[in-house]
Amino acid sequence: MTPALDHLGIAVRDLDAAARVYAALGLKAEGREVVEQEQVEVVMLPLEAGRIELLQPTSPASSVARFLAKRGEGLHHIALRVDDLAAAVERIEAQGMRLVTPAIQTGAGGHRYVFVHPASAGGVLIELVEGGAHK
Amino acid sequence: MTPALDHLGIAVRDLDAAARVYAALGLKAEGREVVEQEQVEVVMLPLEAGRIELLQPTSPASSVARFLAKRGEGLHHIALRVDDLAAAVERIEAQGMRLVTPAIQTGAGGHRYVFVHPASAGGVLIELVEGGAHK
Repeated sequence: MTPALDHLGIAVRDLDAAARVYAALGLKAEGREVVEQEQVEVVMLPLEAGRIELLQPTSPASSVARFLAKRGEGLHHIALRVDDLAAAVERIEAQGMRLVTPAIQTGAGGHRYVFVHPASAGGVLIELVEGGAHK
Repeated sequence: MTPALDHLGIAVRDLDAAARVYAALGLKAEGREVVEQEQVEVVMLPLEAGRIELLQPTSPASSVARFLAKRGEGLHHIALRVDDLAAAVERIEAQGMRLVTPAIQTGAGGHRYVFVHPASAGGVLIELVEGGAHK
């Protein structure tokens, strides 16, 4: 199956200010939650398929906080939904590509995910997601 | 209507090397074309909805070439498909947000587009697209 866009992560300093920008583009905020595991507060902006996630760090140790310090606000990562994450990870490692953390992780919604290291993927931080509550 | 993701643009130095990375993630290249207007050669990677476009500059004057020189390879822009581009532009300008070029442009496929300036949109280069051949 062709992978789908699950979400696009955008690093921001101020969730409310960023949500106003996207509202002007016709995107309405439909959820706001803290994701402890990634140390971010997230505003969800549904697209016709998938969604944009605005990410504001909740701690200076968050990888999003480090991104903001280094590159400023902007596109942070893309998340692709795959059918079989274990098979995808096998294919990736067979190509010599590196993951950010070696094991598959489980999120709050029960979804499973990995991040492919940007050094292996042309400077793009790519999350692969399987299953769970997020649709 | 909720805007849809039309495409995600990723700046690359080597289209073939980048296409190999995305093939390992399950994304198959389905088209390659030169877009003279933007001075890029593009490889299309369809997603379940929308697509990824890998962008390699064809000239050092291309905005993608300038992006690569400044930031290296990585996520370059997102393109959202809207129903009524003129209305969207009016809303954007009413918010004091700035476009990269003031007028709506027409692409090779007959689609109409503008780029919202990243300085007005939290560091993200956002293209808005209406109509034309690209689906």
